[in-house]
Amino acid sequence: MREFELIDGFFSALGARRDDVILGVGDDAAIIAPDTQASVVCTDTLVAGVHFESKDAGGDVGFKSLAVNLSDLAAMGAEPVWATVNLTIPGFDEIWIRDFCAGLNDLALRYGVAIVGGDTTRGPLTITVQAGGRVPVDQALSRSGARPGQRVYLSGPIGDGALGLKVAQGDHRPRADDASYLLSRLRRPEPAIDAGRALRGVATSAIDISDGLLADLGHVLRLSGGYGAELVVSSSWFSSPVCRYVEAGGDIGVLISGGDDYVLACTVDEADAGLFARRGSKDALPWVEIGRVVTEPGIRVRDPRGRLVDITVQGYQHF
Amino acid sequence: MREFELIDGFFSALGARRDDVILGVGDDAAIIAPDTQASVVCTDTLVAGVHFESKDAGGDVGFKSLAVNLSDLAAMGAEPVWATVNLTIPGFDEIWIRDFCAGLNDLALRYGVAIVGGDTTRGPLTITVQAGGRVPVDQALSRSGARPGQRVYLSGPIGDGALGLKVAQGDHRPRADDASYLLSRLRRPEPAIDAGRALRGVATSAIDISDGLLADLGHVLRLSGGYGAELVVSSSWFSSPVCRYVEAGGDIGVLISGGDDYVLACTVDEADAGLFARRGSKDALPWVEIGRVVTEPGIRVRDPRGRLVDITVQGYQHF
Repeated sequence: MREFELIDGFFSALGARRDDVILGVGDDAAIIAPDTQASVVCTDTLVAGVHFESKDAGGDVGFKSLAVNLSDLAAMGAEPVWATVNLTIPGFDEIWIRDFCAGLNDLALRYGVAIVGGDTTRGPLTITVQAGGRVPVDQALSRSGARPGQRVYLSGPIGDGALGLKVAQGDHRPRADDASYLLSRLRRPEPAIDAGRALRGVATSAIDISDGLLADLGHVLRLSGGYGAELVVSSSWFSSPVCRYVEAGGDIGVLISGGDDYVLACTVDEADAGLFARRGSKDALPWVEIGRVVTEPGIRVRDPRGRLVDITVQGYQHF
Repeated sequence: MREFELIDGFFSALGARRDDVILGVGDDAAIIAPDTQASVVCTDTLVAGVHFESKDAGGDVGFKSLAVNLSDLAAMGAEPVWATVNLTIPGFDEIWIRDFCAGLNDLALRYGVAIVGGDTTRGPLTITVQAGGRVPVDQALSRSGARPGQRVYLSGPIGDGALGLKVAQGDHRPRADDASYLLSRLRRPEPAIDAGRALRGVATSAIDISDGLLADLGHVLRLSGGYGAELVVSSSWFSSPVCRYVEAGGDIGVLISGGDDYVLACTVDEADAGLFARRGSKDALPWVEIGRVVTEPGIRVRDPRGRLVDITVQGYQHF
């Protein structure tokens, strides 16, 4: 058996079995059954040396390559259905590839995602995953519905990704359990699928925080018509390990500007805030209100005493 | 404006405008309207130095990166609808990227394909395109329906890709018009969308010849139950430039085993051969009958005088 067929064999056994996948791995293309809901598709590429390190565990890379895509589906309010995996590898490292597949499979099974196809090629280590999902036609979330006066929420803590990267790079050395938590959040981020689904019909906009809160909320405000936001930073924005970093004098800017968080930011009309809060409690979703949309462009972050926080880092730069 | 936003701007203007694309480039994901037909998805990665050369014109690379995917849709009998484009580039070369987009756009417009999303990242030059299409649920073509006694057809000439590569590498120096034709077939292959659609309801299996006729027909025969094929090679298999190569003593093996052709091979039941021929004439599709499926495994190629052709090359090896 040729090596690429062996790899294709690995992929054919991955992910959930679903009745709506008519044909999966192994043909020229996959076939998904018709659906009354809209189809949602997204894709992200992870490059070794840019988005992860070549020495990183295959399982973490496999997990994250799918997670970042499921996070994009979550930001649309979509339920994931299928994914394809394109793996470009310098050579046939069976242990790494099996580990990659195991990490991918772990997350795919958790969210019922069928792995329906992909491509294996030789070249510099690069992974492209595409994910497909579905959402009722009129309930998809977009980036363009924020309006002045609306409240801004986060689906979970931010800063874990940026601080996790500092731990991975040896620039932050917290106590062992914090290090473990932060590295886990960096390497195996949990896509906010449930949170995204809970936003259907109530959020006016949503985005996932992959490039940093300031950059991503900035996208929303720009696409919504050129608005701004007034945010009040507090410990409720952060996990305990990040709070300990801040309390020890750590820079808040890197937490607010850093990427790799994969929580959702959303805007909700004032009139729907009650409904939103009740839904959050019912589903045990830890929404955190972080501020308001305002007419004046630009994002201003203040501390609880009203002082402007100086944010110099400006989010992940692709080039 | 940041460079990656500039690039995203290039992509937002590409491809066809379609009523069934609810949301395209620029959000976390794209949204496609529900459809009564099944969805078909495929993806292929092209790596510089493996599938093309870094010095190749951006327009050709853009065209081909979509073409190889549309060819996979064609092999399912599907009509293309949308595509996403993930471009990993070592740096911001605006001229190359604009040319890439122009080549991609050229093909996308020709087949009404909307470019709905993608990702731009920094890294070794690599392109992953994913394409989505649709086909009536019960009419999709697969690789697994070939049965002994059925006829085997090609939707067009093979060997152009392999001989085009020889021209590109300086190993074959034909007359100028032949060189131009062969290079064009290598760099801008035409996906057999119309041929694939014409196979709905009549072909028992179909595949696109991307890895070479022997390898790809071999996939069909293996997935169909372990059958074989008896083929009779003749000039009808080849374009005029390839025929001239063969007449001058060129190796037939490389033509039959070489990849990069993107024509379809299909099998048709004897009882449907008349219907198939009539459809082909009506649609001006140049189907070429090349042999029969047989019970005995393995593919045997004979010349018109019945002598076995020795095929030593065994198709494109991914690793």
